[in-house]
Amino acid sequence: MSEKMRAILKAQAGPGLEMHMVDIPEPGPREVLIKVKATSICGTDRHVYHWDDWSASRIKPPLVLGHEVCGHVVQIGRDVTLLKEGDFVSAESHIPCTVCPVCRSGQQHICANLKILGIDTRGTFAEYAVIPEVVAWKNDPDLDPAIAAILEPLGNAVYTALAEPITGQSVAVFGDGPAGINVVGVARASGAGRIFQVGKYPFRLDLGRQMGSDVCLNITEPGTDVVGTILDATEGIGVDVVLEMTGSQQAVSEGLQVLRKGGRFSAFGLPAGPIQMDLANGIVFKGARILGINGRLMWETWFQMAGLLRSGKLDPSPVITHRIPLDDFEQGFAAMDAADRRAGKVVMYPDPADI
Amino acid sequence: MSEKMRAILKAQAGPGLEMHMVDIPEPGPREVLIKVKATSICGTDRHVYHWDDWSASRIKPPLVLGHEVCGHVVQIGRDVTLLKEGDFVSAESHIPCTVCPVCRSGQQHICANLKILGIDTRGTFAEYAVIPEVVAWKNDPDLDPAIAAILEPLGNAVYTALAEPITGQSVAVFGDGPAGINVVGVARASGAGRIFQVGKYPFRLDLGRQMGSDVCLNITEPGTDVVGTILDATEGIGVDVVLEMTGSQQAVSEGLQVLRKGGRFSAFGLPAGPIQMDLANGIVFKGARILGINGRLMWETWFQMAGLLRSGKLDPSPVITHRIPLDDFEQGFAAMDAADRRAGKVVMYPDPADI
Amino acid sequence: MSEKMRAILKAQAGPGLEMHMVDIPEPGPREVLIKVKATSICGTDRHVYHWDDWSASRIKPPLVLGHEVCGHVVQIGRDVTLLKEGDFVSAESHIPCTVCPVCRSGQQHICANLKILGIDTRGTFAEYAVIPEVVAWKNDPDLDPAIAAILEPLGNAVYTALAEPITGQSVAVFGDGPAGINVVGVARASGAGRIFQVGKYPFRLDLGRQMGSDVCLNITEPGTDVVGTILDATEGIGVDVVLEMTGSQQAVSEGLQVLRKGGRFSAFGLPAGPIQMDLANGIVFKGARILGINGRLMWETWFQMAGLLRSGKLDPSPVITHRIPLDDFEQGFAAMDAADRRAGKVVMYPDPADI
Amino acid sequence: MSEKMRAILKAQAGPGLEMHMVDIPEPGPREVLIKVKATSICGTDRHVYHWDDWSASRIKPPLVLGHEVCGHVVQIGRDVTLLKEGDFVSAESHIPCTVCPVCRSGQQHICANLKILGIDTRGTFAEYAVIPEVVAWKNDPDLDPAIAAILEPLGNAVYTALAEPITGQSVAVFGDGPAGINVVGVARASGAGRIFQVGKYPFRLDLGRQMGSDVCLNITEPGTDVVGTILDATEGIGVDVVLEMTGSQQAVSEGLQVLRKGGRFSAFGLPAGPIQMDLANGIVFKGARILGINGRLMWETWFQMAGLLRSGKLDPSPVITHRIPLDDFEQGFAAMDAADRRAGKVVMYPDPADI
Repeated sequence: MSEKMRAILKAQAGPGLEMHMVDIPEPGPREVLIKVKATSICGTDRHVYHWDDWSASRIKPPLVLGHEVCGHVVQIGRDVTLLKEGDFVSAESHIPCTVCPVCRSGQQHICANLKILGIDTRGTFAEYAVIPEVVAWKNDPDLDPAIAAILEPLGNAVYTALAEPITGQSVAVFGDGPAGINVVGVARASGAGRIFQVGKYPFRLDLGRQMGSDVCLNITEPGTDVVGTILDATEGIGVDVVLEMTGSQQAVSEGLQVLRKGGRFSAFGLPAGPIQMDLANGIVFKGARILGINGRLMWETWFQMAGLLRSGKLDPSPVITHRIPLDDFEQGFAAMDAADRRAGKVVMYPDPADI
Repeated sequence: MSEKMRAILKAQAGPGLEMHMVDIPEPGPREVLIKVKATSICGTDRHVYHWDDWSASRIKPPLVLGHEVCGHVVQIGRDVTLLKEGDFVSAESHIPCTVCPVCRSGQQHICANLKILGIDTRGTFAEYAVIPEVVAWKNDPDLDPAIAAILEPLGNAVYTALAEPITGQSVAVFGDGPAGINVVGVARASGAGRIFQVGKYPFRLDLGRQMGSDVCLNITEPGTDVVGTILDATEGIGVDVVLEMTGSQQAVSEGLQVLRKGGRFSAFGLPAGPIQMDLANGIVFKGARILGINGRLMWETWFQMAGLLRSGKLDPSPVITHRIPLDDFEQGFAAMDAADRRAGKVVMYPDPADI
Repeated sequence: MSEKMRAILKAQAGPGLEMHMVDIPEPGPREVLIKVKATSICGTDRHVYHWDDWSASRIKPPLVLGHEVCGHVVQIGRDVTLLKEGDFVSAESHIPCTVCPVCRSGQQHICANLKILGIDTRGTFAEYAVIPEVVAWKNDPDLDPAIAAILEPLGNAVYTALAEPITGQSVAVFGDGPAGINVVGVARASGAGRIFQVGKYPFRLDLGRQMGSDVCLNITEPGTDVVGTILDATEGIGVDVVLEMTGSQQAVSEGLQVLRKGGRFSAFGLPAGPIQMDLANGIVFKGARILGINGRLMWETWFQMAGLLRSGKLDPSPVITHRIPLDDFEQGFAAMDAADRRAGKVVMYPDPADI
Repeated sequence: MSEKMRAILKAQAGPGLEMHMVDIPEPGPREVLIKVKATSICGTDRHVYHWDDWSASRIKPPLVLGHEVCGHVVQIGRDVTLLKEGDFVSAESHIPCTVCPVCRSGQQHICANLKILGIDTRGTFAEYAVIPEVVAWKNDPDLDPAIAAILEPLGNAVYTALAEPITGQSVAVFGDGPAGINVVGVARASGAGRIFQVGKYPFRLDLGRQMGSDVCLNITEPGTDVVGTILDATEGIGVDVVLEMTGSQQAVSEGLQVLRKGGRFSAFGLPAGPIQMDLANGIVFKGARILGINGRLMWETWFQMAGLLRSGKLDPSPVITHRIPLDDFEQGFAAMDAADRRAGKVVMYPDPADI
């Protein structure tokens, strides 16, 4: 193994990223080293690229960025018990301590001492990466590496959709970003009944239709009446499930209005500030359940996702709009920043021959 | 049976109630007639007494008020299948249609065609009352009639506390009205761990202590730090369960702050308007669950309540502060309106000898 | 409306059924009269046809048989609240009292006073049938009547599969009768991962494959190793879910052996006598859950089924092997009795023009 | 710290145990060393003492026995994150690998690579013991050491009782050993309604009554009719919950008979061989759930147990019948072997001054 590798660094505080040659890291006792096959860009990576306030307060340069990844195990630590060389793995990005009260209450994904791969530890935008065994997930060897790379964000959609059973239920999805599109696909593959998707971009709503939505509502089109349309289509009852992927005030308000009595509202989108909620009519009188969704359940979400992919009913390929060499990372970030919102997931390959 | 009876009427639109002699009603095919043993005053009855906007829009005088009740069956309708003369029953006040999609989804208590006893139908502040079999609940014959009369509001507390398992969990109760006091008792009887109660009135917080709270926090006392106290006492983790009985902005905000990651927030209190919620930090990142609570589950809540009463671990007697003749209803309403907030539940008896 | 209709009767105790002209029944206050569009034969109907001991003890001739049905409402009882003339309905065959403790605990489908349509009340093998509103289910008007007729048995499969979430899970189905074939389809439409089906008849296992099974195991073929094959395919872990549709000793034993630790075993098949179970190794040490499945949850199962059919992912058509005129009922029963086991569901139409 | 300690060893294959001076062990990177305060005898330890077939196949002498324990941390391994010197801890005896598919499905307590403390690793019948951090549980500092020592077996009872909510439910407990007595206490502290206990020994049934049972049934007394008595007392409906702690054929059969429709049956007792079960009438038609219970949920059970103990409603002291010096271990084993069955839990103290 060569001793140096290419890696994309936040080299110092401030905007931008740079490719450097750095040492290939050594796995610790309970870690493995993987040769990165594919690694994709998260919205969080964009924040770090542009160096917003959150990034400035959290990131300690120099840091290899990246946390959506797949690759093959090339070296295993001394105390690793199950993984072996050659295994094709993806990574859960939330690294739990496993022993705090939060972890022990079944919430490892929001551990009280949580570290995030590529944020608090060295990341995956590189030829090699170290993955703690506790967050390594073994894939079917023949899974498309682009899909294997995006399991982490796809898992957000799986958790949001399947936080409670969705089979046979009517669903309203708010949002048409990658999470919104994926969650349509997960709901459809899980046997949801009618699926409404509310968004802003025709290109993305079309991706949602490819993934299985029945009715698209574009709120930028004059005359679009989200609440009226959904209530009419459900005989005034409303939908069984709302999947809120935007964090916008309007979506939260409309989501509560179209939710049926006794319904479930999965809240994944993150608002910038406080949200006004009609607690009395939207939640209490309705007997509604609001479920906060962050990360992915460890490991229920991953098992569900693997089963859905194996079933052949879930195919997130339409969301993967760009497959580029890792060396072209600047193009990838630019695509995600573009005003036309035509980028879904951007997957980067250290070896262009793998594309 | 005499053909006339005393009954407390909203005789015409406007404030006040009057006692009149009215015909004893006849039960329909699936109804029973009960001789009222005890009937208690709900906060809703106070609204109707004072004739607020909601009352003016909903109530059609003349109407016999009252929906918290117990009594013995004295006549059964033709198609009644299980009840028989002499049975000692209480009433669920939410009368469901049983066949709408909401009822069929297990939510009879918030039926799409819901009628409320004593609001939409003739009530129970009288010597006799008609109870549909679909909302009649058969009690142990030796249950204290005062307790049997308040099962409906006690059931709110049972539902709020037991919407998810509470055994062994730490609990923060916001509110010290009858619902807040009762919910402390239910949590304690169900094996909750530490119980914090947040309120405003020393007299009522003392009742909460009698019902089982471990720590009382009076927000009217200078220096009371609800969030700090609860977080300190839980090693910074927060409580497993928040039971919000007030609907106030402050309680909702503080409740979300003291809730642990992965915790449960039962929302029973009804705010007058929209509430500001920190959706990102209070719900999404925490993986919290907000459960809207209205009425009582039919009939899971009632079974749980009957079992708790039978166990001897739940005794709501401290909440019953007044036991008066039905004829003295004006005193009862006055006690509930009093500024000193020393009234819990006021139970009225048609026959003063039963007190 | 003509005053007489054709109906298939158990005219007197003993084997056989006869077609007679009988009075068209009148609906009671909470019942509707439907014009039967299609009605299918249940295994139970075969028992009654052949007059086994159970039939002799339960059935009171003369009785119109049949309980799997769909049709249009032509007359409504006085107290019917939601249905109206022209509605296209199917029937839940389990008629609950709605007020007993079992019904009130959310188990209407196994009510303590349960009556079964076409067994304890007049049935549906006729031109018209009376359906209590409490068991009437309104269909999409354009649902294939053959499918609408078999919703009751299809619902068994929906309940068996979805008694707990199945999305993403690996599944072993024991049985290849109509219930076994349908349950494969439901699991597949609900996003199950790998599906194994164990049966005896190549024709039926092929129907299972059409419905979505991945691996078929025919226990009549020499060398078939059910336990070994399933454990090998699941890396020795076993499947997440076993759906037992046969009631045979062998299937129950093998099902417990292939179930993973913490797995779910839905028991739908009815053995003739006691079953030997390895409680220690099959259930206790495994932390397994055995769920008894009877009928269909009212109405969770029906909502799930309607949603699955609407999604287009569940199509039970392959199971409907025969569509015949009601007048040819003898052929239908003969097909179901045939030794070659090539009959799935036999659907009969009062009006042959509807076929 | 002295370098040698007293420890009770299975020194070689064959019956009996011996006290020896052995080296005080060193904790590994993720382990802690505790000074044992109290350690109690499990039924499994008796099997090892007497060297039954299971012991001969599993135990590799020399081995320090014992796995029910509490003590104070005196040394921490390099990678221990939360525990510190002086912490008062108990141990979960099931040591999971944390990364196998079983662990990752939330079933660490039945890990595919499970090791058991004092069976597969050095145990706790000694002055000092090594506890992996992954199974260390921090107690309230003022918890009675005898209770802290028996948390592991008490946890069996907590898991068995609380595998589903039990608040307000009627319960039949089969068994009057320590597990059966404890499970009565847990059910009572959790707000169960009526509790029936079925056993054989008056002394133990009296302990059950102290812990909260309402009705005791001694099957060795002529005329005891378990099924009839329980059905009569529940108006023919049966109990909501059966907690089966014996593994006997009779108890399993009677348990299924007294379980209500839709009820829950927790199976903790381990039969020696296959059990006959009336699957059709006992499970399927009833819509019953059979839950296999082994070990304790990690860590839901422990949180529930800690909360119940803190509430003051659960006090397992009556089950602790013997408190003896560790040096007198032979007396402890003899008490547990005695025919009169008057021993509950036997707790041993390395330092007799602690008794």
